[in-house]
Amino acid sequence: MRMFAALAERAVYYETHGDGFPLLLLNGIMMSTKSWTPFIEVLSARHRLILIDFLDQGQSDKMEAPYDHGIQVDAIFAVLDDLGIESADIAGISYGGQVALQAALRQPERIRRLVIANAGLSTSAWLAEIGHGWNNVAGDGRAYYYASIPSIYSPGFYESRKDWMEARRAKLIPLFSDPVFAAQLVRLTDSSESYDISAEADSITQPTLIIGSETDCLTPLMEQKKLQAKLPNSELVIIPDCGHASMYEKPALFASLVLGHLAHDQREFAI
Amino acid sequence: MRMFAALAERAVYYETHGDGFPLLLLNGIMMSTKSWTPFIEVLSARHRLILIDFLDQGQSDKMEAPYDHGIQVDAIFAVLDDLGIESADIAGISYGGQVALQAALRQPERIRRLVIANAGLSTSAWLAEIGHGWNNVAGDGRAYYYASIPSIYSPGFYESRKDWMEARRAKLIPLFSDPVFAAQLVRLTDSSESYDISAEADSITQPTLIIGSETDCLTPLMEQKKLQAKLPNSELVIIPDCGHASMYEKPALFASLVLGHLAHDQREFAI
Amino acid sequence: MRMFAALAERAVYYETHGDGFPLLLLNGIMMSTKSWTPFIEVLSARHRLILIDFLDQGQSDKMEAPYDHGIQVDAIFAVLDDLGIESADIAGISYGGQVALQAALRQPERIRRLVIANAGLSTSAWLAEIGHGWNNVAGDGRAYYYASIPSIYSPGFYESRKDWMEARRAKLIPLFSDPVFAAQLVRLTDSSESYDISAEADSITQPTLIIGSETDCLTPLMEQKKLQAKLPNSELVIIPDCGHASMYEKPALFASLVLGHLAHDQREFAI
Amino acid sequence: MRMFAALAERAVYYETHGDGFPLLLLNGIMMSTKSWTPFIEVLSARHRLILIDFLDQGQSDKMEAPYDHGIQVDAIFAVLDDLGIESADIAGISYGGQVALQAALRQPERIRRLVIANAGLSTSAWLAEIGHGWNNVAGDGRAYYYASIPSIYSPGFYESRKDWMEARRAKLIPLFSDPVFAAQLVRLTDSSESYDISAEADSITQPTLIIGSETDCLTPLMEQKKLQAKLPNSELVIIPDCGHASMYEKPALFASLVLGHLAHDQREFAI
Repeated sequence: MRMFAALAERAVYYETHGDGFPLLLLNGIMMSTKSWTPFIEVLSARHRLILIDFLDQGQSDKMEAPYDHGIQVDAIFAVLDDLGIESADIAGISYGGQVALQAALRQPERIRRLVIANAGLSTSAWLAEIGHGWNNVAGDGRAYYYASIPSIYSPGFYESRKDWMEARRAKLIPLFSDPVFAAQLVRLTDSSESYDISAEADSITQPTLIIGSETDCLTPLMEQKKLQAKLPNSELVIIPDCGHASMYEKPALFASLVLGHLAHDQREFAI
Repeated sequence: MRMFAALAERAVYYETHGDGFPLLLLNGIMMSTKSWTPFIEVLSARHRLILIDFLDQGQSDKMEAPYDHGIQVDAIFAVLDDLGIESADIAGISYGGQVALQAALRQPERIRRLVIANAGLSTSAWLAEIGHGWNNVAGDGRAYYYASIPSIYSPGFYESRKDWMEARRAKLIPLFSDPVFAAQLVRLTDSSESYDISAEADSITQPTLIIGSETDCLTPLMEQKKLQAKLPNSELVIIPDCGHASMYEKPALFASLVLGHLAHDQREFAI
Repeated sequence: MRMFAALAERAVYYETHGDGFPLLLLNGIMMSTKSWTPFIEVLSARHRLILIDFLDQGQSDKMEAPYDHGIQVDAIFAVLDDLGIESADIAGISYGGQVALQAALRQPERIRRLVIANAGLSTSAWLAEIGHGWNNVAGDGRAYYYASIPSIYSPGFYESRKDWMEARRAKLIPLFSDPVFAAQLVRLTDSSESYDISAEADSITQPTLIIGSETDCLTPLMEQKKLQAKLPNSELVIIPDCGHASMYEKPALFASLVLGHLAHDQREFAI
Repeated sequence: MRMFAALAERAVYYETHGDGFPLLLLNGIMMSTKSWTPFIEVLSARHRLILIDFLDQGQSDKMEAPYDHGIQVDAIFAVLDDLGIESADIAGISYGGQVALQAALRQPERIRRLVIANAGLSTSAWLAEIGHGWNNVAGDGRAYYYASIPSIYSPGFYESRKDWMEARRAKLIPLFSDPVFAAQLVRLTDSSESYDISAEADSITQPTLIIGSETDCLTPLMEQKKLQAKLPNSELVIIPDCGHASMYEKPALFASLVLGHLAHDQREFAI
């Protein structure tokens, strides 16, 4: 099912696959619903999988003025309302993980469990500055590619997937050169700068699996450790030899970790 | 279902729970089928869960003469034969992980996927010496308890579960004082000393999830890294703030990791 | 110079080597001044090196009744007084690191800089229990050896130094069998159980280098991280592939780290 | 002493400070002799400290055509010859560490000991691509700043030194906008692309201290681990919570590590 939910005047694109307890997958900043295509079969086998394009992503409406994550949280609930879904699990990576945590703060009763990959409690001054660097060359496809892409991946993945990386570069440079797309990326990046849930994160009580990568150079592992320390009902697993985009670098493992966390209700074990 | 499989003259105790593709759970050295009781519900929901007592464990027959892991591999296949099972997944921890890897080497066509927690490629000289220390005080319940148990757990778990640890001590010291049980532990420990699959591990091609714990003081994380480097179709995840007995320290996460690895067939993703 | 300082009725053995600003080296629990023999030349080249046997160690007097670290702090200052030394640097490992920190709390004006290896802020419940295990087999040389020694070393060191470890075992088992020596070890171990400087550690303002080992199975690396977080003027370095006894496993590096920390006064750099 | 050594037609700037066994400090790619100003006092107290501007750095001659590291190795030996120095220690960071290792391969008898910070065995495809990204925006000061600088530092340092980072940005953007300076950086970066000593590194037998940073996002810690595994006479220390520019983030510790490694000859300890 491919649909649009209405959020005020705007359309939020989503699609659903399969049946079962709803599982929302939330994109990283440069991703779209299409990024998850290889995961659809495996993640929809036992779940009603819902993919969403955030505003300024993919087939959702573009924005004009600056905004913050709050509107993306609105978008999520607009989709759930559109589908008549009371409660869902959410797995989000990077930007999507940040938005997922805020959705759990906004309407905790509607989120059952969380998987948060490669995100932290806040956008550090350092990460904000990296975002400024991306925005500074927005529209210059080649400069934007180099500013943002290589350091998203781990050196080992890069070496082992040179062809894939080159294909990606060939595809992304024209895309990043498109002024409309470039403006979307700028707004998305800007929308993250104010992200900071440090003060209220301890009220997120959903069972949460946090995934950190040992060589994440955007949201270093320390960020996931801090997040785990704050979330009262969370566990952290670390993927060695993996960069920020864990779902690209270790897709089978990423899918396993998501499915495993959602596979059972039991949190107390009388060992 | 609770049954015994015959292995030559010996009886191998096993029990099965639930339906689905068979999942064998293999014990650590001081464990038995009973150790998994809190996991039965969650692990049998979608699998035919098979618990086994190795020889010299729980309700299986005791041995007399020394042996090596080979006889435990025999025991596994005796159980599978008894059940008429052609192929199964195996999840094993510590001793059970070592035996699981050897089962995959012995009859690779009968093992579909593996989860190996807190085990390595071989029994290092260091680990062998720790085993000598256990055996040296075998039968002296208190000495054996102190020689073997505290360093199995991480300091953080120990602090947070003082009551549980004290109850465990109160239960284990009498048990370790029983000369029959003590002799079983000695033989089990001795049976691991020759464990070394370094030379052939690269022929284990089953999709394998390796679980390592950051503060494992029996099979330190480096052992899982070496194992992962050798197994051509394996992934490693690291659990921080966790000791050797990951299934006791992080039972919900352990269950999630096992279920997640078994939840899908897809290893190739056209990302 | 080999001398005894008087502490009430008791004699504290010490020796000094070389000239320069005084550097006190403080022993781990099973060590004595003799353990540092291989380090004397290198550490006394530019320092007045002072080795001390704590009470109940080496050539210092034996104790009878239980005590805590306080008396070892007394011993340190008795030695400094005996030598007429106003101010000294201290490098301590394990037990010696714990005592060094308490000396800095007791008479901060007399301690210039600190190197603290393989120690933490407190004796955790876990570490206390490991100590109980040592004491439980005190006097049984072989059992004590196995309870305490192998897990002090990293697996990699153990493998690469098998002859040394065997020589050590041959020497230590008779020593641990000596009831007088065994009683000393019991008291030393007991004296650590109450160690806890968590509440006041942040008042230790000496420039402090903290050394942690990646596979320390007595005072795991997390303990040094916690210590570093509390000491306002401290730095942490991590030695990979190294166990608790870093001065035995990496003696050249250990000496370099100590000498480097003491080699300069400059803490502020206008970079 | 401030001088120029002649290398063919080119002048290599160097300066010396203090007396003692010579210690050459080698710059990272964006550094110059001036970057070490805060270290001069502490590093020249017991050493004849030699600072060098590589060709295309600081006060040394600019190049025109592309070159590789070989010419920088030439520059080092031209300076040593000019000073009549037979043998020296070298400490190098990043680019300077790579050149130091090649100097040790070229004239091993003239290099006594090495300290190699934040460098690896080769320029990975990933690191090369990051270099391409820098070069792609060469001359655009702001874009170059963002492409290269933030990810050199760790998030924690960045947060704690916001004023310093802002001052650095204000200074570097104009500098990076200068076409002459930009062309120098391009050539320096290009000169690293072919760096690969994997095949011969095991013949470097000088006592070598390798310094790795836990959150190095240019030459991740894994690179230093690989380097350490290859160098037969090396030790690795890890600085936690530190990025690629360890000498800027932890200057006092960096100085201590260098001084400590050079403070003694003793590599064998009869422990």
